[in-house]
Amino acid sequence: MSGSESTTTGSLLVVSAHAGDFVWRAGGAIALAASRGERATVVCLSYGERGESARAWREGHSLEEIKAIRREEAGNAAAALGAEVRFLDAGDYPLVESQELVDQLVRLYRELSPTVVLTHTLTDPYNGDHPAAARMALQARVLAQAIGYDAPGDPLGAPPVFFFEPHQPEQCDFRPDVLLDITEVFDRKRKAMECLPAQQHMWDYYTDLAKRRGVQLKRNAGPNLGLAHSTMGEAFVRLYPQVTGELS
Amino acid sequence: MSGSESTTTGSLLVVSAHAGDFVWRAGGAIALAASRGERATVVCLSYGERGESARAWREGHSLEEIKAIRREEAGNAAAALGAEVRFLDAGDYPLVESQELVDQLVRLYRELSPTVVLTHTLTDPYNGDHPAAARMALQARVLAQAIGYDAPGDPLGAPPVFFFEPHQPEQCDFRPDVLLDITEVFDRKRKAMECLPAQQHMWDYYTDLAKRRGVQLKRNAGPNLGLAHSTMGEAFVRLYPQVTGELS
Amino acid sequence: MSGSESTTTGSLLVVSAHAGDFVWRAGGAIALAASRGERATVVCLSYGERGESARAWREGHSLEEIKAIRREEAGNAAAALGAEVRFLDAGDYPLVESQELVDQLVRLYRELSPTVVLTHTLTDPYNGDHPAAARMALQARVLAQAIGYDAPGDPLGAPPVFFFEPHQPEQCDFRPDVLLDITEVFDRKRKAMECLPAQQHMWDYYTDLAKRRGVQLKRNAGPNLGLAHSTMGEAFVRLYPQVTGELS
Amino acid sequence: MSGSESTTTGSLLVVSAHAGDFVWRAGGAIALAASRGERATVVCLSYGERGESARAWREGHSLEEIKAIRREEAGNAAAALGAEVRFLDAGDYPLVESQELVDQLVRLYRELSPTVVLTHTLTDPYNGDHPAAARMALQARVLAQAIGYDAPGDPLGAPPVFFFEPHQPEQCDFRPDVLLDITEVFDRKRKAMECLPAQQHMWDYYTDLAKRRGVQLKRNAGPNLGLAHSTMGEAFVRLYPQVTGELS
Amino acid sequence: MSGSESTTTGSLLVVSAHAGDFVWRAGGAIALAASRGERATVVCLSYGERGESARAWREGHSLEEIKAIRREEAGNAAAALGAEVRFLDAGDYPLVESQELVDQLVRLYRELSPTVVLTHTLTDPYNGDHPAAARMALQARVLAQAIGYDAPGDPLGAPPVFFFEPHQPEQCDFRPDVLLDITEVFDRKRKAMECLPAQQHMWDYYTDLAKRRGVQLKRNAGPNLGLAHSTMGEAFVRLYPQVTGELS
Amino acid sequence: MSGSESTTTGSLLVVSAHAGDFVWRAGGAIALAASRGERATVVCLSYGERGESARAWREGHSLEEIKAIRREEAGNAAAALGAEVRFLDAGDYPLVESQELVDQLVRLYRELSPTVVLTHTLTDPYNGDHPAAARMALQARVLAQAIGYDAPGDPLGAPPVFFFEPHQPEQCDFRPDVLLDITEVFDRKRKAMECLPAQQHMWDYYTDLAKRRGVQLKRNAGPNLGLAHSTMGEAFVRLYPQVTGELS
Repeated sequence: MSGSESTTTGSLLVVSAHAGDFVWRAGGAIALAASRGERATVVCLSYGERGESARAWREGHSLEEIKAIRREEAGNAAAALGAEVRFLDAGDYPLVESQELVDQLVRLYRELSPTVVLTHTLTDPYNGDHPAAARMALQARVLAQAIGYDAPGDPLGAPPVFFFEPHQPEQCDFRPDVLLDITEVFDRKRKAMECLPAQQHMWDYYTDLAKRRGVQLKRNAGPNLGLAHSTMGEAFVRLYPQVTGELS
Repeated sequence: MSGSESTTTGSLLVVSAHAGDFVWRAGGAIALAASRGERATVVCLSYGERGESARAWREGHSLEEIKAIRREEAGNAAAALGAEVRFLDAGDYPLVESQELVDQLVRLYRELSPTVVLTHTLTDPYNGDHPAAARMALQARVLAQAIGYDAPGDPLGAPPVFFFEPHQPEQCDFRPDVLLDITEVFDRKRKAMECLPAQQHMWDYYTDLAKRRGVQLKRNAGPNLGLAHSTMGEAFVRLYPQVTGELS
Repeated sequence: MSGSESTTTGSLLVVSAHAGDFVWRAGGAIALAASRGERATVVCLSYGERGESARAWREGHSLEEIKAIRREEAGNAAAALGAEVRFLDAGDYPLVESQELVDQLVRLYRELSPTVVLTHTLTDPYNGDHPAAARMALQARVLAQAIGYDAPGDPLGAPPVFFFEPHQPEQCDFRPDVLLDITEVFDRKRKAMECLPAQQHMWDYYTDLAKRRGVQLKRNAGPNLGLAHSTMGEAFVRLYPQVTGELS
Repeated sequence: MSGSESTTTGSLLVVSAHAGDFVWRAGGAIALAASRGERATVVCLSYGERGESARAWREGHSLEEIKAIRREEAGNAAAALGAEVRFLDAGDYPLVESQELVDQLVRLYRELSPTVVLTHTLTDPYNGDHPAAARMALQARVLAQAIGYDAPGDPLGAPPVFFFEPHQPEQCDFRPDVLLDITEVFDRKRKAMECLPAQQHMWDYYTDLAKRRGVQLKRNAGPNLGLAHSTMGEAFVRLYPQVTGELS
Repeated sequence: MSGSESTTTGSLLVVSAHAGDFVWRAGGAIALAASRGERATVVCLSYGERGESARAWREGHSLEEIKAIRREEAGNAAAALGAEVRFLDAGDYPLVESQELVDQLVRLYRELSPTVVLTHTLTDPYNGDHPAAARMALQARVLAQAIGYDAPGDPLGAPPVFFFEPHQPEQCDFRPDVLLDITEVFDRKRKAMECLPAQQHMWDYYTDLAKRRGVQLKRNAGPNLGLAHSTMGEAFVRLYPQVTGELS
Repeated sequence: MSGSESTTTGSLLVVSAHAGDFVWRAGGAIALAASRGERATVVCLSYGERGESARAWREGHSLEEIKAIRREEAGNAAAALGAEVRFLDAGDYPLVESQELVDQLVRLYRELSPTVVLTHTLTDPYNGDHPAAARMALQARVLAQAIGYDAPGDPLGAPPVFFFEPHQPEQCDFRPDVLLDITEVFDRKRKAMECLPAQQHMWDYYTDLAKRRGVQLKRNAGPNLGLAHSTMGEAFVRLYPQVTGELS
């Protein structure tokens, strides 16, 4: 979606280390934003060509072929969710942090003026690229706020940041403090997952996880909220304090 | 306020160890709820007659006199905030935990059906009554949810719980994750504070704190929110994950 | 099973707050122990008659009827796992801690000489009975070790203690450090779950969880371990350091 | 030992910032692995020539002399433990992290296919080289698992990682969760320590520590394990969850 | 020592669960205070007659005999350190918390006006009596500060509290933030330890620990402090922030 | 002040990311050291020209102008406190870590032989330059201790390190464990603050904070310390254990 016809100022930015991460971990949040008419943009720092394409390597594909495959699949998945996608092609395994890459992110922040930012957790003992992506996403967000930082556009406000759920949440110090109801857009998330055929076993895995987070969502909301039995959820951790005019 | 004429279902319950706690720590949240037409109820487990009335003791008042003074002052402060107050007179220093007291709280939960609950932090090395109050408030909330618990009324839903700010936040593991904008009701909070003449030095202290939390509120909200320079805030910690249909 | 004909010294003790907890959370560990010919004993401190029997209450059953139903179901489930079960009928919601109850547990420790102990986590903001059960299980274990504690039998050794998985693990500070492969006994666990007809929606929920822990188990074990795609797992947290003669 | 004649698949890899670290902190674990006929390899990223050779500097030795001394001593100590040693000579104080060094480690992982990995803790306010070594050891382990990473050999499995004990454990967030019984090989560890004459005061210090960890080992194992009074121990922290078929 | 002839206002209060704890864990701090002419008082809540007298039970002594033995030994040890000792005989294994016992402690605080308080850690998975003692010591300290608490004497100030070192520090969340140089009084501590003949193996164990803490003390103090090679130390954790007029 | 005429060995080193940080966060500690006749040196790694000079940018100043303004203001503030100031002009937003910059700090440590070091916290989600400055300050301190590190001067001792208070303490894991009484030098701190006219709103903000820390200081010191009602305080976190000959 382009968001150009939207009258809302909502703009979601998702910073993802590899091409598929945003689908499993934040597909529901992205589809929800898009369904509200907000702009949703996914930035893939790499294609996950080395670290998350085992099957393609076993099938004998070349590096460039793998990148092309991943790019196409991620584009399809983003479209299914209603989001735009940008690829920075910074390489993975390892995703090397650099000021150049941070600067590219600063420019994106200035261009997109996100009102909400999603990224990886800062701890992940299974995948160093994830925290590297998160650190750069956070550093760029702070730099983009400074009028003195030399990049086009106006200084950024202070959009809230949410970490999306890693594969082994407890090992990544991921203690959810926000449970998002994605029931109404779960079909879109499932369709987006099905754009990634090499990881077919993940489709059911993340469907099960959405059910599990949905059960917890109901348990934390109480019977009064009138949630259906088939509630689907996504879990997030909020980095900065919530600012609000009403406790709820 | 009784809330009987209210058309909203909002009901705020504040569980306070002593008679004055709710004013300093949650006066803004209470006034905000009342200003929205919600029912707001403060439960004072004790009057703070032994532990928080040093001046009255030094002036030679008897225990019963002190309790009467504190009761009146807390009643005035609650009225200034637009809240109802209940006194359980369970004694302080120490506030002794008992199943009888928990049962009284269960009955209050069932009667009031709170949609939001505020209480003390679970850690406070300066005042054991505060965590004792919090533990009872939390236990009663869970018991009130069980249809099998023998008390009048319907089982409680799952109202969110927020811890309000202790006097020395860092020593009480108080890391705010909700900053509440209380600017529009700060006058009422100040008036409520002034109902407690024995602690006059606290008036400015908690006014300063509200300014400080207001500055942090603005910093976390960004310039886009259009907050005025004189924003006043209160800080809270959320116990259970937030349940929401939109990240913001 | 009684274990009387067993030649192994293994003895598993599971301390459970309510009648059903051990099935969902530790059914695999129990079935594994039994399948190795070890003695497995479940102690249910209460029947979960008030807090975990919502459906029976809504159906209009009396307290005594509910206790009888829960007792029979838990007995069936334990039998399906190959375990013995003891009911202490101490009441739930709240499960009130007392020295008398701790003393009963000390006597059980002395009688059974467990080599492994399983119980609830020490933190659970959704259910105060769970930490209460855990605290008593841990206190009794330490008391049973003292020759000076006045109870029949020899002093206990130092059996390792594992916390089993709560319903909302991250909210209970549950960071798994042991992943148990229960693939070979999962059928028994499923049969035991099916002994609890009032909670039919939990059957699939905990089957999904077992798959999810199984995936994590494979990820932490590496491809070399030759685990099948359908590995099922249970997660635990170890309280005391592991004592070993070999790192692995 | 070369392990070439061994029929076991065990392969221990120890990643050490400086030339002496592995002796004090993991000598027992290394000697145990070797005594079981496993391959044991120590990688010293530096000789500790600047930061851990104060006496040699005070005696006026040149940098090259100090490196040669440290190399010989570490080689002798490794031999006493039954381990092979590799020196990467990457410099210390500071040990600068680089992708080149990580790549060397990836190649070692691929060559050695370790089944167990030991390294420093990720926190050490007294010595920045230690966490730097640990970060590189962990990053390389993850990279070596990816089929897409361009280095000779097969992708690595998922060997468990243990952090060995730093000099001031509590300041390094070192909370032991594995206590290893090294009684039977302590003589070898002592001999290896005595290969480092410049730090003679450490011999008794680490002998005392082994006793202390031995006492804790007995206390956590209980009387039933039949441990002798002179049990000697080494403490470790496990990074990833233990995968097991039996709780014990 | 009675302190009556002392001109200093220093008054050290040590709250110990069992009769021997104060010797191993705080003997140096006690002897230092006494050597400065301060009053030092040890309160033993129990004799440790059930939980810490295994040898006496195995030798067939009766409960009363054991209490008498422990009382005499602890008295001798206190005398060797220069401290007074009070026995509250509240029973151990378990040490049951009660308001009566807390009240006795409040009266002691009011009587002794301690300027420094030492007690056990709040976490100890090996011994529930230790945290129970600490909780009562802390609760009593806060109650004694309230003018409204009904006990003889003046309200207490706010003496700093230090936790002394448990047997397995890391398992008790004991991260030392104060290292006390006890070199000059270590002989007295050793003599006090030798007053406890049933635990002879502890004499060397705690001498080794004192050396180990001494090495850490030197490492944290730097070479400039001119500490001797044989520095002996005790480790503590400070509960409340240090109040000072100078950073050092 | 140069300290050349001083007979004390005290030497305070403050490592500050930007030119203004030391005034708000450590002005009291600096003025106290100077008032005792100690040498006090502030190192500003950058001028804060990009990230902390929003007003100057809005007024249209050039980068070089802004740096000049900040340099002069910081110099005035340091003089008001009695401190010397060094500017390393390493750039901000981001402050890029480098071994060259660390080496400059090592040389300063060797030159100044600080007996106390102050710097930023290691966590600050609002400003990445702060933790970057702290990491370099800590790494340089350790390197300066090594005789083998190639820089002029004698190896450094082990000066204690204190983190000063960040703008949003709880979000930066800042749990004060030292409260410094700055009452007698608060006037100087106020004057130093007034040297920074672009941040006039901060003058009162940090005056209020000093009052608030002063109230906490009194609460932790007790009535016995005879503190006046107008006590002003600064809060710090100690990185390494305190080494002392007396608990207090």
